[in-house]
Amino acid sequence: MALKTAEQYIESLGRLKPAVYVLGERVENFVEHPLLRPQINAVAATYEFAQDKEYGELATTVSPFTGDRINRFLHMVTSTEDLVKKVKINRLLGRKVGTCFSRCTGLDMLNALFIITYEVDQKYGTEYHQRLKAYIKYLQQNDFACHCGNTHVKGDRSLRPSEQPNPDAYIHVVEKKSDGIVVRGAKIFQTGSLCSHESVVAPSREMREADRDYAVAFAVPIDAPGVIHIYQRGTLDSRYIEGVDIGNIKFGKFTTLIIFDNVFVPWERVFMCGEYEFAGPLVRTFATYHRVSHGGCKSGWADVAIGAASTIAEYNGISRASHINEKLTDMIYMTETMYSCSLASAAEGQATPSGVYTVNSVMANTSKLHEVKFCYEICRLLLDIAGGLGSNMPSEKDLRNPQIGSYLEKYLKGVNEVPTEHRMRMFRLIEKLAFESNDLGSHIHGAGSAQANRITLLRETDLAERRKLAKVLAGIDGEAK
Amino acid sequence: MALKTAEQYIESLGRLKPAVYVLGERVENFVEHPLLRPQINAVAATYEFAQDKEYGELATTVSPFTGDRINRFLHMVTSTEDLVKKVKINRLLGRKVGTCFSRCTGLDMLNALFIITYEVDQKYGTEYHQRLKAYIKYLQQNDFACHCGNTHVKGDRSLRPSEQPNPDAYIHVVEKKSDGIVVRGAKIFQTGSLCSHESVVAPSREMREADRDYAVAFAVPIDAPGVIHIYQRGTLDSRYIEGVDIGNIKFGKFTTLIIFDNVFVPWERVFMCGEYEFAGPLVRTFATYHRVSHGGCKSGWADVAIGAASTIAEYNGISRASHINEKLTDMIYMTETMYSCSLASAAEGQATPSGVYTVNSVMANTSKLHEVKFCYEICRLLLDIAGGLGSNMPSEKDLRNPQIGSYLEKYLKGVNEVPTEHRMRMFRLIEKLAFESNDLGSHIHGAGSAQANRITLLRETDLAERRKLAKVLAGIDGEAK
Amino acid sequence: MALKTAEQYIESLGRLKPAVYVLGERVENFVEHPLLRPQINAVAATYEFAQDKEYGELATTVSPFTGDRINRFLHMVTSTEDLVKKVKINRLLGRKVGTCFSRCTGLDMLNALFIITYEVDQKYGTEYHQRLKAYIKYLQQNDFACHCGNTHVKGDRSLRPSEQPNPDAYIHVVEKKSDGIVVRGAKIFQTGSLCSHESVVAPSREMREADRDYAVAFAVPIDAPGVIHIYQRGTLDSRYIEGVDIGNIKFGKFTTLIIFDNVFVPWERVFMCGEYEFAGPLVRTFATYHRVSHGGCKSGWADVAIGAASTIAEYNGISRASHINEKLTDMIYMTETMYSCSLASAAEGQATPSGVYTVNSVMANTSKLHEVKFCYEICRLLLDIAGGLGSNMPSEKDLRNPQIGSYLEKYLKGVNEVPTEHRMRMFRLIEKLAFESNDLGSHIHGAGSAQANRITLLRETDLAERRKLAKVLAGIDGEAK
Amino acid sequence: MALKTAEQYIESLGRLKPAVYVLGERVENFVEHPLLRPQINAVAATYEFAQDKEYGELATTVSPFTGDRINRFLHMVTSTEDLVKKVKINRLLGRKVGTCFSRCTGLDMLNALFIITYEVDQKYGTEYHQRLKAYIKYLQQNDFACHCGNTHVKGDRSLRPSEQPNPDAYIHVVEKKSDGIVVRGAKIFQTGSLCSHESVVAPSREMREADRDYAVAFAVPIDAPGVIHIYQRGTLDSRYIEGVDIGNIKFGKFTTLIIFDNVFVPWERVFMCGEYEFAGPLVRTFATYHRVSHGGCKSGWADVAIGAASTIAEYNGISRASHINEKLTDMIYMTETMYSCSLASAAEGQATPSGVYTVNSVMANTSKLHEVKFCYEICRLLLDIAGGLGSNMPSEKDLRNPQIGSYLEKYLKGVNEVPTEHRMRMFRLIEKLAFESNDLGSHIHGAGSAQANRITLLRETDLAERRKLAKVLAGIDGEAK
Repeated sequence: MALKTAEQYIESLGRLKPAVYVLGERVENFVEHPLLRPQINAVAATYEFAQDKEYGELATTVSPFTGDRINRFLHMVTSTEDLVKKVKINRLLGRKVGTCFSRCTGLDMLNALFIITYEVDQKYGTEYHQRLKAYIKYLQQNDFACHCGNTHVKGDRSLRPSEQPNPDAYIHVVEKKSDGIVVRGAKIFQTGSLCSHESVVAPSREMREADRDYAVAFAVPIDAPGVIHIYQRGTLDSRYIEGVDIGNIKFGKFTTLIIFDNVFVPWERVFMCGEYEFAGPLVRTFATYHRVSHGGCKSGWADVAIGAASTIAEYNGISRASHINEKLTDMIYMTETMYSCSLASAAEGQATPSGVYTVNSVMANTSKLHEVKFCYEICRLLLDIAGGLGSNMPSEKDLRNPQIGSYLEKYLKGVNEVPTEHRMRMFRLIEKLAFESNDLGSHIHGAGSAQANRITLLRETDLAERRKLAKVLAGIDGEAK
Repeated sequence: MALKTAEQYIESLGRLKPAVYVLGERVENFVEHPLLRPQINAVAATYEFAQDKEYGELATTVSPFTGDRINRFLHMVTSTEDLVKKVKINRLLGRKVGTCFSRCTGLDMLNALFIITYEVDQKYGTEYHQRLKAYIKYLQQNDFACHCGNTHVKGDRSLRPSEQPNPDAYIHVVEKKSDGIVVRGAKIFQTGSLCSHESVVAPSREMREADRDYAVAFAVPIDAPGVIHIYQRGTLDSRYIEGVDIGNIKFGKFTTLIIFDNVFVPWERVFMCGEYEFAGPLVRTFATYHRVSHGGCKSGWADVAIGAASTIAEYNGISRASHINEKLTDMIYMTETMYSCSLASAAEGQATPSGVYTVNSVMANTSKLHEVKFCYEICRLLLDIAGGLGSNMPSEKDLRNPQIGSYLEKYLKGVNEVPTEHRMRMFRLIEKLAFESNDLGSHIHGAGSAQANRITLLRETDLAERRKLAKVLAGIDGEAK
Repeated sequence: MALKTAEQYIESLGRLKPAVYVLGERVENFVEHPLLRPQINAVAATYEFAQDKEYGELATTVSPFTGDRINRFLHMVTSTEDLVKKVKINRLLGRKVGTCFSRCTGLDMLNALFIITYEVDQKYGTEYHQRLKAYIKYLQQNDFACHCGNTHVKGDRSLRPSEQPNPDAYIHVVEKKSDGIVVRGAKIFQTGSLCSHESVVAPSREMREADRDYAVAFAVPIDAPGVIHIYQRGTLDSRYIEGVDIGNIKFGKFTTLIIFDNVFVPWERVFMCGEYEFAGPLVRTFATYHRVSHGGCKSGWADVAIGAASTIAEYNGISRASHINEKLTDMIYMTETMYSCSLASAAEGQATPSGVYTVNSVMANTSKLHEVKFCYEICRLLLDIAGGLGSNMPSEKDLRNPQIGSYLEKYLKGVNEVPTEHRMRMFRLIEKLAFESNDLGSHIHGAGSAQANRITLLRETDLAERRKLAKVLAGIDGEAK
Repeated sequence: MALKTAEQYIESLGRLKPAVYVLGERVENFVEHPLLRPQINAVAATYEFAQDKEYGELATTVSPFTGDRINRFLHMVTSTEDLVKKVKINRLLGRKVGTCFSRCTGLDMLNALFIITYEVDQKYGTEYHQRLKAYIKYLQQNDFACHCGNTHVKGDRSLRPSEQPNPDAYIHVVEKKSDGIVVRGAKIFQTGSLCSHESVVAPSREMREADRDYAVAFAVPIDAPGVIHIYQRGTLDSRYIEGVDIGNIKFGKFTTLIIFDNVFVPWERVFMCGEYEFAGPLVRTFATYHRVSHGGCKSGWADVAIGAASTIAEYNGISRASHINEKLTDMIYMTETMYSCSLASAAEGQATPSGVYTVNSVMANTSKLHEVKFCYEICRLLLDIAGGLGSNMPSEKDLRNPQIGSYLEKYLKGVNEVPTEHRMRMFRLIEKLAFESNDLGSHIHGAGSAQANRITLLRETDLAERRKLAKVLAGIDGEAK
């Protein structure tokens, strides 16, 4: 069964028994929980796409490991064409769900591990790469979703892992056994942790020798003993509980804090254990992929925002105003900038010794820098075009109230030919797009914050070469080409 | 009793019996409602200031009408010094409550009406100005809060009031009687409608002759028969109902849709009735004042955001990073720009024939244009500095849960010397500042949207004079000075 | 002789006898004129590259028309790989010359004509396409440079060509003869007109039926009878005449106003003559190519600016200051944005019925929009990093003056290990990069101004599709997918 | 004679005999030199204003030292009204000359010295303050212009004055005599050095004890023995020599490098000599004043740019295009931002113990930060509106050439009713405004670069107070107000 249907995905997920807490309460049937289900729906869309007539060919490929047709979100990328397709499928899915669909963290980390475990094995004669291949094959054969949120809780950010007063501020190995390791610590902002069958865990920063125990990468099922998922709340989550004023009526996003409280991991699921000098390269390789993934999905999200802005301008009767068109144009060029930088980064990808391709890092970081500013600016423009009802609108509960419903019907109407309820729904979608903290937080911090992008850009640009160009043109002696 | 205490204010407000609906339900004791009380608290701060040792002198003045010391929020501005003090008290109050305190709309509209009713009376021999003075005296004598949100629901925005399919899309006179008028329609985004004793209603756009019935200004108590207040919900309002994760623990903002369903207004409370050519000047005078008011209060709001950013950088252990300081510097210069433009607008104010001073319109609109972008950008920088927990944090309910509380205590800790709970509270404040749609909507649309600012700026700049300057410098014949 | 050397190029150019005026004087030996030679040197670099060991393979290809190896600047693009290589060679050349190398206008117009003449012939049974092929073959066989600046003088811009008081404000056919046509009018901002053997002329706007005579495209040698080239001066051109303080010591840019005073064109060089409905598609196809060309060469120009900024920071002793690194990072990400958008536009190119590939228009226009702002911003950052001497430095003549030279030597020295003269030369290069109006004008207006980019972006984005995405997510009835 | 006419100013200046070098040549009659006269004309405008019917009252005041009416550019500011008038007169003069008028550096430094010498005398019992007053009285009685450019050449910027390999990289005392001191070193970017009768020299950075000899402030006539002025060339200076294509036909700007080669200064002109701890406060006080002065004059410069943009849009026939109006609006709001921040800084000024008022530093630095970006952006928008001829236009020499003049007349014509020559002159003015490096360099670096502004802003903002505001609102214990 290399390709699950959306229903099979949800059914298989529901058979797992993770320890889950939401807003202070233990949750049993997590796949049905109103705060969790919207993102499970978004992940389900990645399964739907794989079976879709229009998108199926883009959304799947044949695995070199199993020979079966598999979901692209489990495919190791072995060409620039693969990289480009990753960006394109992300934009399409972003358009469909209008939020995160949680598959990229896992995919990007598996590819990063594929490259780095190969290098570790070359240096140390270890067998991480084979283990990883076997694990990937297992995921492909079961069509499992797998996530990797990557971020440590970090404690005091001025201190390295081994310097922290709380030794568990970064996940680390607390015991090595004959059959596996025991790990303790936590991961935070885990996109997709309760929408996936499997969690991949890896270091999120470079390490030094003293941090050796923190240089650990591994995989566990989300319901492994000792794993606890704690829901991190977003701005609009109560609406799901109330059951009205939801905006994006089907899809949503959340993250979790995952506690690893002395969790046992068998050796065949351990992909790094002490090779601290590879922690930095691993996280950088992951992050670079992931910045490009964002360039795809956020463009799709932005397409929805553009569509919402254009729709509400029509509903308000101002779609022909020149300043509205100027603002839509701004939204468009920002969107296409993110997408173009990501596509270029993919198209300029290069093979690694492992056979897997990396993206162009300079372009990937450029893309992400734009995302940080542009997604925020797109929200502002969307609210500007929408008018105040994008920020504050009476509830649908008011519309349903027999005493005042007719007032709302009358006074929240825009142009004559559009039902008030349609206009209200579009405003709720706009509110969701512009104020959903899970998405806005992701625009800013997902795949690493702006300062990380900037540092990378400066480090990866050959300034000496450019200085030489300038000196030659200025006629400075001893610099003739 | 020219100066009420905060307690007296709330007590007197609570004696009113307005028709109030919140999230589909009729509310009786509105001053105690968890969704309404936070802004009532913010308005109460304006009463506290008036009695404060440090701020009292700035916050009050002597009324030329009553001879008593009154709250500055009921004072007609008769000097540039008055205008400047209005900006300064706003910044101080913005700092204290971290949100809107709802007094400016009423104050700004009363001053605008003071100027315009004088002009109307000059032209038509009407007696609006005397009525208004008597009304202001009444407010001052009772130290009543009064609001004016101004915004019509507008219907199809491409149509004028008299052209709308729904004749009630703009408030209008439906009947003139010997003792008063009957009005019908609605006002939306009414900041402070349930924190004030009185509502002042006025046109929010220019009118033509066909719109004559829509050119109506008047005042009513908030519980006048036929007035219905419907709460407009914001992004984070459910937190007040849950009673946790509130962020700004005492103060907040909301707006309402107010229905005027055949409301009777006695003539002594009617300040415009059919003089359509004055509708435009009235709303422009109001809006210009109000753009300057924003420049004050939003600077205070921004000071809180700067403080939160600086605090969380300390709590995270990164306060010495150069990029953090660069971002704080950006937040500062944006804040001071809004404040400077508003102060300059006030300092360059000019007397009108009525004796009341107007602010400089070009500078007022410049200030507001910066607010639209800078407040949004300040939120982005705040979230950037804060890291992801500014967007998504487990609930305080999780911290209180005995099974998982200790995990949160341990894993959400930052630098060693700051309690986890303090850090969590600061993140919740950051969430509130960055995602509260009532505030963000106000930054963008309050006092008129960016396009209104831009049109005003272009109209009020003497381009012909500047063309002449250029021609003289270029030596173009016939243009010698 | 399919590949000329740089020397052969200059020698062959010098054999032409165009009518040239520079600063009010008739010029005979134009290839040696100090104001013209620097750009001839830049074009020569395109010939050098074709013979370069490192770049030759990228800079040349085999012509499908002649079977010979030809310069890429004469190659019709028949794959996305060709499109991508065009961008890459442009960046490399931009780095080498630090300014425009004038080959793209011709190349981009020949490709655009290739596509459009094919369509015209399909519709009308004309033979423009064959003529054009023959002409391209002629250029390839002689390795001739060919330019097309495209811009009409336009007269009153609110009027169409046929409405102008001056009928010659746009080039038009004044006579049709058996052996050819006679044209009159002018073209302005002709980059490369005196660095090329041939001029291609085409309409620069859409036309209507009344403008039929203005819908004319043709080619002539630059010294055809009736053609007059008038030099358009730039900010720093006098330095070339003085022979000091030049900055970029070898390369430069200029444009000309070309008068076509009743010029005869034989039919075999006429590529459009009256098919007015194709004028718009032709100029749009050209401009879209050319926006992508800019994304390449301007990235190379920006690399030089980055190199100059980094060098002068070292010379000034401030290369380790964090704000310098932040500004360099800004320059880098702006550069890579232009490059990425252009590369993506090329990589997403599509075949036309003619066999030639077009670039992606949305991405091309996004690239150009960034160029307009970023190149300007790069200049500002360069000047900011450099300090005041980037704007105002004593002349090299002062350094050579025996009375004061030693003062300059002493007081214009930066860090001890760098000779004063080197520092002065770097400042002069910075002045050239930041203030050369020929380049800055090109950043802003080359390949069409920002407003043209914006209009194209809005027109080529499918808003209806995006509205549908939003409606589905908002749950608006009748929009289910 | 407390108020000279413009003619008397120039005549008196011409009687001085400074050592002047321009482009490698010694200049005798400097007031008539084509490269120097344009700025002398601009300074003359400050004398004209003082006698102008319309502006005279603003441009002059009564000196408390002499009791005579004096030019405001020699007045010590003793009220916020004085500070505000300084800003206003600057905007008016900036409008009149379209460039720098050179009087502010001297005025701002005299005021700064007035404050600081008072403090030095209080601490050390020295008599600098009395000397300075006597000097100011001397200037006022003679209505002399006086400049202070302030900037050291700096050498290796990573080193302090006393650490430099070249001990003369900063001006210092080389000998103390009974009747005065001997100084050596250089000052650079001296705006107005050859348009003033007197030079005031002062340290441009903070100093430590080892830098004691560099902590020296004094005044000399511009033709004191040992003083040499070396012209620093700008982008467009050759046009003045050619005598055509000048743009701003009467006014211009230049700066000089001034060498002080063992210059003797009598004690009565020495205002600081070794009190190193006051060097920092002095330069900061000066710079803060000067940032506000810029806010005035640059707004006037920007008014000319707006006028030029509006004029050329008319000449081109596009003045009704909405995007043109949007760009003009951008230019306006940027201009008014600089002006508002400066006005606010002046209006919020405060008295010092010396009696002279300082401006508000936070607002002054905010104003300058906007200037750095906005003046540059205004140039870009001006060029965008103008079209390509703002960057590259044939010379007026071509227009005068009998062979081709008629072609230019015909082909450079815009709308029918405007003579071609007028349009050409407006384009030349635009070129001058957008590309004159003396002005653009001043926008960026004058009164201190952006980084200096940013550091000051952060230092002068009370972050601890703002952190407290945030903690109180977040309900963090122990922080109750």
